Amino acid sequence: MAAAEESLRKALAEKQSAVEAQGNAVRALKAAKAAKSEIDAAIEALNKLKLEKSTIEKQLQAAVSGTDSREAFRQAAVNTLERRLFYIPSFKIYGGVTGLYDYGPPGCAIKSNVLAFWRQHFVLEENMLEVDCPCVTPEVVLKASGHVDKFTDLMVKDEKTGTCFRADHLLKDFCNDKLPNDLSISAEKAAELKHVLAMLDDFSAEELGAKIKEYGITAPVTKNPLSDPYPFNLMFQTSIGPSGVSPGYMRPETAQGIFVNFKDLYYYNGNKLPFSAAQIGQAFRNEISPRQGLLRVREFTLAEIEHFVDPEDKSHPKYSEVANLEFLMFPREEQMSGQSAKRICLGDAVSKGIVNNETLGYFIGRVYLFLTRLGIDKERLRFRQHLANEMAHYAADCWDAEIECSYGWIECVGIADRSAYDLRAHSDKSGFPLVAAEKFSEPREVEKLVIAPVKKELGLAFKGNQKNVVEALEAMNEKEALEMKAALESKGEVEFFVCTLDKNVVIKKNMVSISKEKKKEHQRVFTPSVIEPSFGIGRIIYCLFEHSFYTRPSKDGDEQLNVFRFPPLVAPIKCTVFPLVQNQQYEDVAKVISKSLTAAGISHKIDITGTSIGKRYARTDELGVPFAITVDSTKDVTIRERDSKLQIRVDVEEAASVIKSVTDGHRTWEDVWANFPHHTSGSSDD
Amino acid sequence: MAAAEESLRKALAEKQSAVEAQGNAVRALKAAKAAKSEIDAAIEALNKLKLEKSTIEKQLQAAVSGTDSREAFRQAAVNTLERRLFYIPSFKIYGGVTGLYDYGPPGCAIKSNVLAFWRQHFVLEENMLEVDCPCVTPEVVLKASGHVDKFTDLMVKDEKTGTCFRADHLLKDFCNDKLPNDLSISAEKAAELKHVLAMLDDFSAEELGAKIKEYGITAPVTKNPLSDPYPFNLMFQTSIGPSGVSPGYMRPETAQGIFVNFKDLYYYNGNKLPFSAAQIGQAFRNEISPRQGLLRVREFTLAEIEHFVDPEDKSHPKYSEVANLEFLMFPREEQMSGQSAKRICLGDAVSKGIVNNETLGYFIGRVYLFLTRLGIDKERLRFRQHLANEMAHYAADCWDAEIECSYGWIECVGIADRSAYDLRAHSDKSGFPLVAAEKFSEPREVEKLVIAPVKKELGLAFKGNQKNVVEALEAMNEKEALEMKAALESKGEVEFFVCTLDKNVVIKKNMVSISKEKKKEHQRVFTPSVIEPSFGIGRIIYCLFEHSFYTRPSKDGDEQLNVFRFPPLVAPIKCTVFPLVQNQQYEDVAKVISKSLTAAGISHKIDITGTSIGKRYARTDELGVPFAITVDSTKDVTIRERDSKLQIRVDVEEAASVIKSVTDGHRTWEDVWANFPHHTSGSSDD
Repeated sequence: MAAAEESLRKALAEKQSAVEAQGNAVRALKAAKAAKSEIDAAIEALNKLKLEKSTIEKQLQAAVSGTDSREAFRQAAVNTLERRLFYIPSFKIYGGVTGLYDYGPPGCAIKSNVLAFWRQHFVLEENMLEVDCPCVTPEVVLKASGHVDKFTDLMVKDEKTGTCFRADHLLKDFCNDKLPNDLSISAEKAAELKHVLAMLDDFSAEELGAKIKEYGITAPVTKNPLSDPYPFNLMFQTSIGPSGVSPGYMRPETAQGIFVNFKDLYYYNGNKLPFSAAQIGQAFRNEISPRQGLLRVREFTLAEIEHFVDPEDKSHPKYSEVANLEFLMFPREEQMSGQSAKRICLGDAVSKGIVNNETLGYFIGRVYLFLTRLGIDKERLRFRQHLANEMAHYAADCWDAEIECSYGWIECVGIADRSAYDLRAHSDKSGFPLVAAEKFSEPREVEKLVIAPVKKELGLAFKGNQKNVVEALEAMNEKEALEMKAALESKGEVEFFVCTLDKNVVIKKNMVSISKEKKKEHQRVFTPSVIEPSFGIGRIIYCLFEHSFYTRPSKDGDEQLNVFRFPPLVAPIKCTVFPLVQNQQYEDVAKVISKSLTAAGISHKIDITGTSIGKRYARTDELGVPFAITVDSTKDVTIRERDSKLQIRVDVEEAASVIKSVTDGHRTWEDVWANFPHHTSGSSDD
Repeated sequence: MAAAEESLRKALAEKQSAVEAQGNAVRALKAAKAAKSEIDAAIEALNKLKLEKSTIEKQLQAAVSGTDSREAFRQAAVNTLERRLFYIPSFKIYGGVTGLYDYGPPGCAIKSNVLAFWRQHFVLEENMLEVDCPCVTPEVVLKASGHVDKFTDLMVKDEKTGTCFRADHLLKDFCNDKLPNDLSISAEKAAELKHVLAMLDDFSAEELGAKIKEYGITAPVTKNPLSDPYPFNLMFQTSIGPSGVSPGYMRPETAQGIFVNFKDLYYYNGNKLPFSAAQIGQAFRNEISPRQGLLRVREFTLAEIEHFVDPEDKSHPKYSEVANLEFLMFPREEQMSGQSAKRICLGDAVSKGIVNNETLGYFIGRVYLFLTRLGIDKERLRFRQHLANEMAHYAADCWDAEIECSYGWIECVGIADRSAYDLRAHSDKSGFPLVAAEKFSEPREVEKLVIAPVKKELGLAFKGNQKNVVEALEAMNEKEALEMKAALESKGEVEFFVCTLDKNVVIKKNMVSISKEKKKEHQRVFTPSVIEPSFGIGRIIYCLFEHSFYTRPSKDGDEQLNVFRFPPLVAPIKCTVFPLVQNQQYEDVAKVISKSLTAAGISHKIDITGTSIGKRYARTDELGVPFAITVDSTKDVTIRERDSKLQIRVDVEEAASVIKSVTDGHRTWEDVWANFPHHTSGSSDD
């Protein structure tokens, strides 16, 4: 692609020169009052050159952006989604608020189906400890986690109006706009802009500010100058209680509620590791300028798992159940060397050390199964490893489940081995040890270093500074202490730097005793590692919408009809029931079937409007309803499957239970199709 | 009770006098140096009187408070709930935040079971349109709803430390403390304090302030003087976006999200009334000083239904399904006349007009079924009608489902007919008409008043004031216009007050034409009424905890064991599985059963610790697990029911399906008990 683009830029520059030369030629002929036929021929040649130039321009535009067809697809999907109330901008009658969306009835049903399946697939299957903590969080908790200090985006302000923008977004927009539209830029300049795009996440405030100045980027719309970039904290701040002295925030993630409860949960689990805790709930990020619809919003549902594990044993008992899975993975090395994601067997990735450990691998496998069972396309799902510069310093390894949609590859699930960072941070801040213990079956002998300062001698020597010297001695690590011991034994005294005094002191042999002692220990106390799969439910749902959406021609071929191919598991409504014609008998049968569906817990809809059967099918296809029951007799009815449009005949009494078995997943449609009489009458929509 | 209390106060006053008199007598005898035997006898009599006085004091205390046994019960329940992590104070390692609680694993499971049943019982059963809106809400929405101006509690401040208190709570505490503990107060004073308690909710800031002054109430702990009461808004405020100029709040209820979407939902429902919309979600109230555990918290889950209905037709098609229900109701009249709640047939209450309309009655009945199926005790559940002074001016009728627990009768569900208030408020504020239309099958002729000011004449007469006069004329209601018409016809002119000019003007016959014209109308456009059942999920769950909790002696009778009698529907874990003894074969069987339970979607727990079977039963009883499978052979197993402690024998292969049928509600335990062999061996806990 890059090579094609480069040669197109060259061709365009050549064609531009040719156009200019021919333009000059035409002008010269006119000035020389040449024959009309001669001038006309020159103009014709000029027009031909211009046409050729415009064709190359279009090719270059397409090569650079490749977004036209994607955007058309997205527009069609989003139109349907908003029109059928899958989701809509919140508070629309008041003009809406960017970054806030409502799920209408079908969207809300899908969300609750996705969450129910998440509970089934993760919480129930793994016996996880699910908790439910408040969104309002006191400052101290988010100070410990680092969010108060570091959960920021770089912002610039329109210097005249005060309007705020994300600094990286403006730079990104500038590059993305320049590349396809300013066809005059050189191949070198194009390469530079692409490099900027790739490095965007790594830029410091200073680097971003410098680029914005260099490119002369101004505020959108007003074109006013911009301030230097500065960090803006993304948490919604509030105040807890009436006094105004207890700052709080709306949580930016659900994980902290689990970490602070570690000790209770560990106890609940019989003081045994490993175990997982889980939480589903709202999280909040006060984005500077949200865009991309459901993908970047100010309030969203997270489902998070914190798996606590002994850092010395990250094996997983059920690992073998996923080890043979094979799917698209995008390890660090492939990214660095410019390759693309490739199909890898999960077990190989773990055994080769590409994936850090078995437990991390197990969760990657489970996430793959979760997403594909929801209906995410296997071919547009990849697991991308974080590059070294993307990962927090404490993280052992991190993989994102990325789903490709019209906006590109979107991070929907993060699966990180966060080591002991979070529990340590809260232990330090609260003074409450969040640790686990491995009890030894019999006591083990361990050698421990003992540093015993002789306070009397130190007091005599250092008077008021005695305490600083004592603390500095006790803070020595094993290596330092053993070196001092050796020095004292050989030379009788040693120079020692006390950092709290900022000077060297002389330590004599009688001032400290350093020895190694053998001790019996009954247990090993340690801070567990945390492996965290974290699911952005709204993003998953949006990608699912796009992967499920397609159009097909109507029966008459005069329009394109919209369909969502949701699997029954997530479909908002499992079944519609309609009488073929308006008729009391058929309506009664429809109501009887509806009652049995309700009793079986199957969400459905009766449609007794008089519209044509074709229109009614089109309406339910657009909601992704997988099955439709048409009542065309009082004895048996027709069941139609959405995507194949195949139809079977089923007894009235059996209709609800057939629907139940295919929506529960106890039976496939293929199985049903093989076992019931087929229907091929004109009542169908095609 | 009140009468008993009064006579006890009298008896206490008499006994006090007797003690004083006898005291004087003893002193007199001592002063007169009477015989030792005589003095001793007098002292004995004094001590006897003192003892009698103390007995009366205790009786009075019990009569006034009646809370001792309740508090002991609550303490036992809450201890168990917190120890087993049903719920715990949030952020405990940082000292917690009052009014914020976490649900631990069993509490979280119960909450999700309650919500799943709510969805089944309301949303699915009635085909409600469920939506999911954000918690972050822009100011304009809550300005329209009245929350920005009126969602307040009266607060007083410690004038020295600045600590805040709810004014009514301090007054309430004062009365509640004075009544049982200051036994010297007169019966009149006691009556006054009780009156204050009853009127507390109606007091204005001035009245509350006056009472606080009158009783000399000071700040708790510090005893500093208090400020006058002033309103504090209970919403958590925040700021949307980075500019700081868009105030927002965390929603205090979920209802507003539904109201602002009325038009879209109405369209989604095929422009037909009635329909219900529903929402489950977090709501926030920044309480001044939260107490009573889960009952008054700063963040909670609400489940709300907004049923939109034609104000001219509040019948309900399924009303007959609940009309025969009979339960405790507490109509306005019974409350005013000092009677207690009584058992009333719902159908009678509706037909006699005690309940305003059928739809309101239908929802009261459905709420009754919902709560009792969850496990709320019928005898401690009543529906209390709001008194006239409790209801908003626009409300047509309002009933609270109140559940009695150790804190008294607690409002858990409010069922209100809010008329057209909410939709009108948002129509007015947004300028977007939230209305419905009834299409007539054929056009109807209606008579309409037409007021046509003659602008030319008015302009000549009133010059620059013409516009004010025109608007005033057009704003006349029908009565005023017809009176003017008559006056103009009889007298030719009439005095007319123009409020925007604040003076009378003379209107002549040629300045306005007033007539009644017949028009054909094709539809009736109106603002729907809203009937709103609103569920405080946390409160319902807390009451359910108390109603389910009981203790019973252990097998040896040496301790009281805790049990929660949760119905299988809400039980956090449906079943435990344990091998009778530690043994590989039994463990394998337990794992096989566990796998089938997981496949059947039944939450369960395996316990392979070596503790005694009795202890293991006690542990699961304390979590309210209804069934336990003990593996004591490789062929068949024992299933024990929690409350009856009865046990049956079931084939290993059948165990999971038996558990599934009794937890799904497809079979009762009685039915199972009648159909399987019984088990009576020593493996039982008693």
